[in-house]
Order: sequence, then structure tokens, then C-alpha cells
Amino acid sequence: MHRTRVRVVEDALDANTTIAQANRADFDRAGVKVVNLMSAPGAGKTALLERVVDALDGVRVGVLEGDVQGSYDADRLASLHVPVTQINTDPGFGGECHLDANMVRSALGAVPLDDLDLLIVENVGNLVCPAEFRIGEDARVMVCAVTEGEDKPLKYPLMFRTCELVLVNKVDLLPHLELDLERLLRNLDAVNHGVERILTSARTGEGVEELRAWLARLAAPAEVPA
Amino acid sequence: MHRTRVRVVEDALDANTTIAQANRADFDRAGVKVVNLMSAPGAGKTALLERVVDALDGVRVGVLEGDVQGSYDADRLASLHVPVTQINTDPGFGGECHLDANMVRSALGAVPLDDLDLLIVENVGNLVCPAEFRIGEDARVMVCAVTEGEDKPLKYPLMFRTCELVLVNKVDLLPHLELDLERLLRNLDAVNHGVERILTSARTGEGVEELRAWLARLAAPAEVPA
Repeated sequence: MHRTRVRVVEDALDANTTIAQANRADFDRAGVKVVNLMSAPGAGKTALLERVVDALDGVRVGVLEGDVQGSYDADRLASLHVPVTQINTDPGFGGECHLDANMVRSALGAVPLDDLDLLIVENVGNLVCPAEFRIGEDARVMVCAVTEGEDKPLKYPLMFRTCELVLVNKVDLLPHLELDLERLLRNLDAVNHGVERILTSARTGEGVEELRAWLARLAAPAEVPA
Repeated sequence: MHRTRVRVVEDALDANTTIAQANRADFDRAGVKVVNLMSAPGAGKTALLERVVDALDGVRVGVLEGDVQGSYDADRLASLHVPVTQINTDPGFGGECHLDANMVRSALGAVPLDDLDLLIVENVGNLVCPAEFRIGEDARVMVCAVTEGEDKPLKYPLMFRTCELVLVNKVDLLPHLELDLERLLRNLDAVNHGVERILTSARTGEGVEELRAWLARLAAPAEVPA
């Protein structure tokens, strides 16, 4: 008897992973790099985008906005003259607290991928579930506001552990807080040792140039060896 | 043929509602009032509890701490000498981003209900899903930090709409923020008109006495007419 052995890879069975790979293939075909931008509500994702998108000269940027309801952030970003697409998780998905690969996929028809170098997906404000769903991104960037206290990396470790870059935001408020910044950074290293971090302030502009350079490097086409 | 017609009430089929009612019955039997305390991560739930629990003289308070992982908040509250019970949503429930009625029920065996007048359930830090799950509470109290911006009631309306009290926290930072407090309160009224609100600061103690009085009124036994 002829036997064929199929080895089932656990991940391959997961619908989200399968759809994330399809997204990834579309992004690769279009030559677009994708950032999954995550944070707690009010940490400053949109305010940082307002600062950095304007500065990304020479990089064609688009934004995919995830919100439970409304288009408040998309409206804020409209003045930047980059393509902004809104996903609401409320009517179609029952008020989901995160974006998953399929929600992103359902919006891709409205995103001009071929005209972009970099797509920034602003996830729903939440430190738990967004971390559990890959969307086909190249990099995960999270924003952690210093106003949230030192303990967040320890309390929401998956989010902090799966990021390539952490933006420690609202540092202009440090003089007015009883925050121990060194302890926050130690807690960050405890869950994701040596992860890249930039101290940022959307208000003063601190760290925005560093963030711009990081995103520009990500969006740059891979160099072909001579 | 004898026909019995069963009218299915939609809510009665919902397992969470059924279990919330069972919790409610246990709370009533023990004469305990229950607060479901919710907010985004880092809005200051635990810091406010540290201030107010100490001040609640004559009210026997217990705390049920919901966290994805760890016991950081429970450890902070241990110094208050009130019974604190920890629920972790990570190992048993797959890293849930909220407490539901069954998680609370699974912990009730460890809560000395008969020795309490008031049980405060500190939910997982999240502005989306906790609002969707009743746990058998008498009142929902949410904390909204002014550092989170003016738009949060509009972006997370279910949470703000289903609360009996909103604590507008971290008001000591107002002089250092570009926040329009009136706009925040207007947005609050837009989703939950006239909802009670207290401006609080866990650091300066502003509003803590008002919060204490609110909780003491909630915990007071109903007056029997003479």
C-alpha cells in the first residue's frame, strides 16, 4: 500500500496565519513594507504619525486606520495628504478589540499598494489581543506612554515581547511624573532584552527624526549585491 | 396535541448573563455590593484604590484583581490589609483581555463574601471587551485619565455608555497637557448624558473624598422605611 505522510505544521492550520501569509504575498508583490503600530488607548500613535508621516520625504506612505467605531484618527491624518483607509471593527466584526489578518485583507482593495513604499497599520488601542494576531507585517512597533507607569511590560508581556521597536512616548511629561524611567526600561529588557527603543514626544518632536530614519530604513528596497 | 410555547428571551440564552445572575444572587445573599472597575492600561485604577480603600472607614472592602499575568497590582494592594484575590486570565483562559462572569465565579470561593460590604473588581486594563461582559456588579466605575486625550468616549462608546460613574483621573497633570477638559466632558455627555463624574488625582488626593463618599453610599444597606 502506498502511503503518503502529511506532516501538519501547527501554524499552517491557523486561519489567521494563512491569511497573514496571503497579505504578506500581496505586500511583497507590490514592494510595500508594512508596520503594525500598536499601543494602549491614548498612548499617542496618531499624534506620532502626524509628526513622522510629514517628515518621511521620498517615502510613499499610506495609513490603514483600525478603530472600533468612528473615523476620528483617519480624519486627523487626512490633512497629511497620504492615502488613509479606515477599518471599523464594530459593524462588521462585532466590536472586535483588535485587527486580524482577515480584517486587514478585507480592506486591501481600498489601499493603493502599488503606489506605496510603506503602509502603517494603526491597530485598535489595546495592549492584549492585537499582539496575538499577525497581519502580514514586516515589523511591529508599539507605543508605550510614560504616563502609563513602569509596570506595563510585565503586565502585558506578549505585546512588548513581539515588537521590533518600542516608542517610549510623552517624555516631555517626565518632569511632572513620579516615573522611574530606568525601571520602565529595565522592565522592557526583562521581557524583550535589547529591543530597540526610541524616547519620543509628539509634542516637542523629540525622537521623531530617529523614528523617521528607522521607518525610512525599513521602507528602503533591499540592496542588491554588486 | 398539547403544545407548550416557550418564549426564549434572547438574554436568557447568553451563558455570561446566566452566570452573572448567579454571581448576583451570591452577592445579594452575602449583602455585598460589587463595583466593576474598568479603564485603559495605566489610567490609575490601582493608584486610586490605594488611596480610597484606606479611607473607607467602617466599610468592609475586598478587592478582586484581574490581570492577564502576574500579581503586581495585588501585591501593591496587599499593604492595605484588605482581602485581595488575584485572577489571571492568561494560564486558564488563553490570555483573555477582560474578565467575564465565569472567571469571577471561579474566584468567588476564595473571596470572603460574608465578611464584606463592598467588593471592588479591578478588571483587565482595556477599553473594549470588559464593557461587553456583566459580572453581576451593582455599578460600573471607569477611570479615564486626562493624559489619554479628549476623544476616548467617542472611540470607545460602549465602555463610557454603560458606566454609572466616570473618574476623570490624573487632573494634577492638566497644567502640563494640551487637553481641552471641557471638550472631554462634552464627549462624555455625548455618549452618556449626565453620567456622574468626579475629577480625581491619586497623587494629590483631589476627588478621593468624593469617591470615598460615593462608594460608601453604594455599600450602605438599603434603608428600611419606618
